[in-house]
Amino acid sequence: MKKNSKELFERARRVIIGGVSRNTVFRLPYPDYAAKAEGCYITDIDGNVYIDFANNMAALIHGHTFPPVINAVAEQLKKGTAYTLASEIEFAFAGLLKDRVGSFERVKFMNSGTEAVMAMIKASRAYTGRSKIAKAEGAYHGTYDFAEVSQTANPDNWGDIDNPQSVPVAYGTPKSVLNEVITYPYNDIERTLTILDRNAEDIACVIVDPVPHRVGLMSGTEEFVEAVYSWTRANSALMVFDEVVTLRVNYGGAQEKYSVPPDLTAMGKIIGGGFPVGALAGRAEVMSVFDNHRKTILYPHAGTFSANPVTMTAGHKAMELFNQKAVKKINALTKKAILQTEEAIRIAGVPVCVTGAGSMFRIHLKPNAPNTYREAYQPAAEKQILKEMLDYLYYKEHLLLINTCSCMLSTVTGQKEIDKLSEGFYRAFKMLKPKIEKLNN
Amino acid sequence: MKKNSKELFERARRVIIGGVSRNTVFRLPYPDYAAKAEGCYITDIDGNVYIDFANNMAALIHGHTFPPVINAVAEQLKKGTAYTLASEIEFAFAGLLKDRVGSFERVKFMNSGTEAVMAMIKASRAYTGRSKIAKAEGAYHGTYDFAEVSQTANPDNWGDIDNPQSVPVAYGTPKSVLNEVITYPYNDIERTLTILDRNAEDIACVIVDPVPHRVGLMSGTEEFVEAVYSWTRANSALMVFDEVVTLRVNYGGAQEKYSVPPDLTAMGKIIGGGFPVGALAGRAEVMSVFDNHRKTILYPHAGTFSANPVTMTAGHKAMELFNQKAVKKINALTKKAILQTEEAIRIAGVPVCVTGAGSMFRIHLKPNAPNTYREAYQPAAEKQILKEMLDYLYYKEHLLLINTCSCMLSTVTGQKEIDKLSEGFYRAFKMLKPKIEKLNN
Repeated sequence: MKKNSKELFERARRVIIGGVSRNTVFRLPYPDYAAKAEGCYITDIDGNVYIDFANNMAALIHGHTFPPVINAVAEQLKKGTAYTLASEIEFAFAGLLKDRVGSFERVKFMNSGTEAVMAMIKASRAYTGRSKIAKAEGAYHGTYDFAEVSQTANPDNWGDIDNPQSVPVAYGTPKSVLNEVITYPYNDIERTLTILDRNAEDIACVIVDPVPHRVGLMSGTEEFVEAVYSWTRANSALMVFDEVVTLRVNYGGAQEKYSVPPDLTAMGKIIGGGFPVGALAGRAEVMSVFDNHRKTILYPHAGTFSANPVTMTAGHKAMELFNQKAVKKINALTKKAILQTEEAIRIAGVPVCVTGAGSMFRIHLKPNAPNTYREAYQPAAEKQILKEMLDYLYYKEHLLLINTCSCMLSTVTGQKEIDKLSEGFYRAFKMLKPKIEKLNN
Repeated sequence: MKKNSKELFERARRVIIGGVSRNTVFRLPYPDYAAKAEGCYITDIDGNVYIDFANNMAALIHGHTFPPVINAVAEQLKKGTAYTLASEIEFAFAGLLKDRVGSFERVKFMNSGTEAVMAMIKASRAYTGRSKIAKAEGAYHGTYDFAEVSQTANPDNWGDIDNPQSVPVAYGTPKSVLNEVITYPYNDIERTLTILDRNAEDIACVIVDPVPHRVGLMSGTEEFVEAVYSWTRANSALMVFDEVVTLRVNYGGAQEKYSVPPDLTAMGKIIGGGFPVGALAGRAEVMSVFDNHRKTILYPHAGTFSANPVTMTAGHKAMELFNQKAVKKINALTKKAILQTEEAIRIAGVPVCVTGAGSMFRIHLKPNAPNTYREAYQPAAEKQILKEMLDYLYYKEHLLLINTCSCMLSTVTGQKEIDKLSEGFYRAFKMLKPKIEKLNN
């Protein structure tokens, strides 16, 4: 069969830098081009059909072309896609979010998770009058430079664990930016508190992702989150959550399981119903930095497409139908998927493990589940085998995963697809067993 | 008639901070809620119909529910709204943009103008290895904190014109951010070059908006842009354009009229066809900082919804139909609108003037067209009269303008609407004449 995707990519490289605007869809020698998608299946222009466990980087909680969302959007299209007036659906949706998460007293919408995290950091500074932020080594929080510090830290530059270095992601990141960011080791209470203490008077907020995908997709322990919360109370700082990915974990977000609430929460991904979205929510007193009824707005913030009625309509419908029952069902199916994957690991006899929460899980080519970023870190040899595994799963088994070897399920995923996934894993593990075993020697 | 918008806004304030996510749609005592829009008309839920000269803050080049865009999007909806695969429409659209603007050798998409400007600044730093940026006093470039410095500078804090202070917009902006930003006086060649010279070795890029809306919607003079270009060539810095608003000015953007090209250009607004969008384009060598084929990507950049096929489809169709003929037609109509407005000014005998370019114009309650931000600056008394005028135009004449008293036309605006606009202006000028005259005494 003619490889149309190959030809398209060659043409694309002449106009788009790197060929695609997103590194997450990039693949060597070339990415395939989507023709159409439906439910949990996606078809490329060469006619290959994949089961989609990536769901646009965890953003499609109901999979592709979910009829209730598509129909609602089609209705809105007839009335306009964006206005310089207010829209009723904006606060209907804000109300829905507020009703399901206890810490959400006030909400505000923007266009992406990156914008939401940036707004969360700027709001924390505006509320506290302080300039520094603390974030976990390895955690991805979008592309705002302060937020991305140390996301890709590696053994050559991360420094002593008692004092993790602020490592830039982008070349040319100002030193002044690095100086404003305190990096802490995730889930490591003692070291984290010591590091925070050293900067106690300057920290506006401590950012916590309750299940940080790039750190290792392990949950923040209750003790850790409680320790951070107590520290922020004692030091007049804010504890803020990045739930862009993790809001799907429970009905009330990943934060539902902790005894202490974040002051602010950044959102994105699933709350857009498949359309670009970001949101910030939290304590009314903190959110009041945005209040345009004040004589001086502490933090004026707009955005041409923020809260546009198409995104609001899609997000409202998607979240309305991601109800208690749907959350329970998808989490139960994910538990099943993890069990089947662990069975495949056992039968194949490979030193591999699984981490995850809610409707997400990730494979590590390590015998024991990592608790921290440095434990989860993949040396080059491990990355290489993981890439081989992902390529095998994609090209041979037609399973589309996130490039960390993570699965983010949708509500339309079924037992049939889970069986194909675990069988695919089994064959991949068996095939790569000698290489994986060599890693651990 | 029952004022439903009032009631809705009261409810909205209990869930959304300030009641609306965008300050640009905020209005005292409350904003009206959109029911539907079509072409250049928008109807609120209380049944009022307005002629829309705001077009979602200049983003809707073909007005509302433009059938070719809506039909194309409806087709795409059936195939999915976002994938973890590549999409053909992404590079078809990139190719279309490349073909119309000479400086666009490579393109990359993101989700908003804010993201595009942030990426432009980070790319400039990555390319030059320098950390500082220079931007015009008063210019709005989105909500990235480096980009927003001095956007709202006022006589109490802007300092000497020979050395404009870096003034924060958001409370709590780190001093380190202010230190990385050099503020220059727009269109003032001598002072700007002197200021740039003082920081010659540290400047990664000089950001120029060729027709900066918030500065005063005057064009950058050819001499000014050429001087900035020459300075950047002599000092190994980049000249980068913010054309988020101004791409509509000519077929090839506002940059078309200058003899010198920017190294990078940030886009947004009209290129989304009514959907959230941002883009960065420019010289291949500079854009290569994003190249994911390199062993080390200098500036890794993704984005869950970047280049999503709905936005790409809408943007491609909108820009395809905003062709040479359409650009000529809308610009000619805008010229007519300005002439009629100037006639209204003359007949009413008020000291008012108009600035603008292409399909955009702005009213100033001043006798002479301002050339710089400080000349265009509105003291409190002037702001108050402008607000009265905007309220009159909106509530009495049912004309929806941008809150700076600017009009950004769409291709579906016609002579009938222009007549209503200039008649509305005439009545507003006559009514406010005593107050406007008092301003200038």
